[in-house]
Amino acid sequence: MALIVQKYGGTSVADPDRIANVANRVLKSYTEGHRMVVVLSAMAGETDRLINLAKEMCDPPDPRELDVLLATGEQVTVSLFSMFLRSQGVPAASLLGHQACIYTDRSYGRARIIGIDTTRIREELKKGRIVTVAGFQGVDEVGNITTLGRGGSDTTAVAVAAALKADLCEIYTDVEGVYTTDPRIYHKARLLPKISYDEMLEMASLGAKVLEIRSVGFAKQYQVPLRVRSTFSEHPGTLVCKEDESMEAIPVSGVTYSRNDARVSILGVPDRPGIAVKFFKPVADANIVVDLIIQNSSVDGRADITFTVPKGDLRQTLEIVREVGKEVGARDILSDENIAKVSIVGVGMRNNAGIAARMFEALAAAGINILMISTSEIKISCVIEDKFTELAVRVLHDAFQLDQPR
Amino acid sequence: MALIVQKYGGTSVADPDRIANVANRVLKSYTEGHRMVVVLSAMAGETDRLINLAKEMCDPPDPRELDVLLATGEQVTVSLFSMFLRSQGVPAASLLGHQACIYTDRSYGRARIIGIDTTRIREELKKGRIVTVAGFQGVDEVGNITTLGRGGSDTTAVAVAAALKADLCEIYTDVEGVYTTDPRIYHKARLLPKISYDEMLEMASLGAKVLEIRSVGFAKQYQVPLRVRSTFSEHPGTLVCKEDESMEAIPVSGVTYSRNDARVSILGVPDRPGIAVKFFKPVADANIVVDLIIQNSSVDGRADITFTVPKGDLRQTLEIVREVGKEVGARDILSDENIAKVSIVGVGMRNNAGIAARMFEALAAAGINILMISTSEIKISCVIEDKFTELAVRVLHDAFQLDQPR
Repeated sequence: MALIVQKYGGTSVADPDRIANVANRVLKSYTEGHRMVVVLSAMAGETDRLINLAKEMCDPPDPRELDVLLATGEQVTVSLFSMFLRSQGVPAASLLGHQACIYTDRSYGRARIIGIDTTRIREELKKGRIVTVAGFQGVDEVGNITTLGRGGSDTTAVAVAAALKADLCEIYTDVEGVYTTDPRIYHKARLLPKISYDEMLEMASLGAKVLEIRSVGFAKQYQVPLRVRSTFSEHPGTLVCKEDESMEAIPVSGVTYSRNDARVSILGVPDRPGIAVKFFKPVADANIVVDLIIQNSSVDGRADITFTVPKGDLRQTLEIVREVGKEVGARDILSDENIAKVSIVGVGMRNNAGIAARMFEALAAAGINILMISTSEIKISCVIEDKFTELAVRVLHDAFQLDQPR
Repeated sequence: MALIVQKYGGTSVADPDRIANVANRVLKSYTEGHRMVVVLSAMAGETDRLINLAKEMCDPPDPRELDVLLATGEQVTVSLFSMFLRSQGVPAASLLGHQACIYTDRSYGRARIIGIDTTRIREELKKGRIVTVAGFQGVDEVGNITTLGRGGSDTTAVAVAAALKADLCEIYTDVEGVYTTDPRIYHKARLLPKISYDEMLEMASLGAKVLEIRSVGFAKQYQVPLRVRSTFSEHPGTLVCKEDESMEAIPVSGVTYSRNDARVSILGVPDRPGIAVKFFKPVADANIVVDLIIQNSSVDGRADITFTVPKGDLRQTLEIVREVGKEVGARDILSDENIAKVSIVGVGMRNNAGIAARMFEALAAAGINILMISTSEIKISCVIEDKFTELAVRVLHDAFQLDQPR
């Protein structure tokens, strides 16, 4: 019999009826003889309600105290869930972050898990109990409550599964699994039965929101088999696991897109060593993540630098860049928010020549101009005009025949 | 400069505006140079909301998990309160029951504090912070969350004050302090500037709801000076403290009443040793608290036993008593819910003869029949017909001239 960690998101535990539904799902696996650890998120909307309450009090709220406040969301669901199981005569116990000994650093609001002492969880399992762990929260070395940031419950689940050396970590959500692309954009999107950690990491970082990216990193690091599936159906969903030969045969697994970035161009900067760092050091210091960077070839000793940043950071980025631009004598600074990034992802890309060419060809055939290109070992991204996003996703999905089961 | 513990109840922290108001009150004492520890209740109505949520899930809810759920109420207020202070540039930190190391036994829902390790609170105070402690909650020896029951935040405040050897514990509520009687029943009720622990204990046990009785017991045990006052005025309220000579000069400090009890009469039981215990042992075993007991003198070897129990326990009491009644051959068993208990309380009673006589005389003069009488060193209680409650309170208040300042 297996040790299984299951995680249920906010929509799965949105009200007492749904919590009871989740409890019955868990109970099914439990009665089959599996040892069960269940990680729960806050009820859908609760975290936002608490954030608004905090903002009514003061804005911005103190990060330490905000975490104390937000941690109540998961505390409510784990207690309701466990009391329901107990009312059904099932042994169960809830554990909060500090009780489950989920230790983190002290970065309130986006804490990183640094270790889990599983003694208490194992004790509860030994008593035959279904153990419910509050997701999203941890505790620092002196007992301050921390939270892991949006999607943090996925990370809790995978970290707990890794620490327990669980046989499987199932992430229950409101979609059936991981698709070849966003089904809301293309009806031909196909559910992937299996995907590698690396592909999932790329897809998550490129905008596919089905899994929180840190949780995938954890799963890869500790080789935790991860299954993404729906709370509201019996479909087995998508297994995220170690790469195997069958995966390498497929050059492209999915098409993703993101509209979160804006483009900044610095025109006519002196083309000499150390110029780029003058711009990117202060941007990095402001905690702004730069994604694609392109520097064109020099003309008359001057070059253009173009890069993308999250839209929310554009204003601050421009302030920094304009200041440095003045200092080094840049000719002009431009920005553009009407861009999108479409990407193809696949571990099979490594052994397949000509994938990039096929991508560019497909976009060109649809009349879509490529503004920037970036590649990694298993991913090719193109920045295009925003308005072409859906079209680009569809033509790429067709070009690589992603609607065909492999 | 003093070390002060202040406690604010649910109506004082009912919404963000009121929480800000409380913060400003605390800040006033802090800027005067006092070291401040603030104990907060859940926002008014929040505990009931959570209980209803639990009952929607299952009824009755599991006690351990209910405590996990209810503890979120105070967690919300302490975080909002502390983040507000921090937004004003004031150093502050919230501590939950487990962080403040408030250790209790494992009686979920009505846990008793067995000790407080003040190390963390003292550390925070040393840093110059206003320390906010979540009321009502504690933690057992293995880290399970417990709650202290209704009014438990008063107990938290007094216990923390005792453990810290604080100079003063102020209980802020929505009334001005302790009155000679309930001002809603008699407009001549007068605010008492001072009252002894013992008088307060009697008044609390007799129905005056201004302070939770366990907190008074704690205050007496550890000699914590307790001030009861209003969050919404500047009036200094009532000091609950050690008895002094000025108190002994006053025979009666207050008149209280209670309508919570019902009367049970067992008629015609054999008058022989061991009969009373046959009735009261099983009642006590059912956790039912018997208050007044009267046994009249024997006629023909048979006697009547009359006693009072809380109305909520009447049905169960009658079941027990009827069974034993059959066994010992009692003639009949009667019950009456239309009774009330009026009491006069005062430490000066000990040295003043004739207080009881004056009480009976005043009731008789008003045409009120006394059904049962019970006395302690500093209290006399009479059970009367329910309908006379207000009248009895007023005539007793007049008889002992409680409207006159001493």
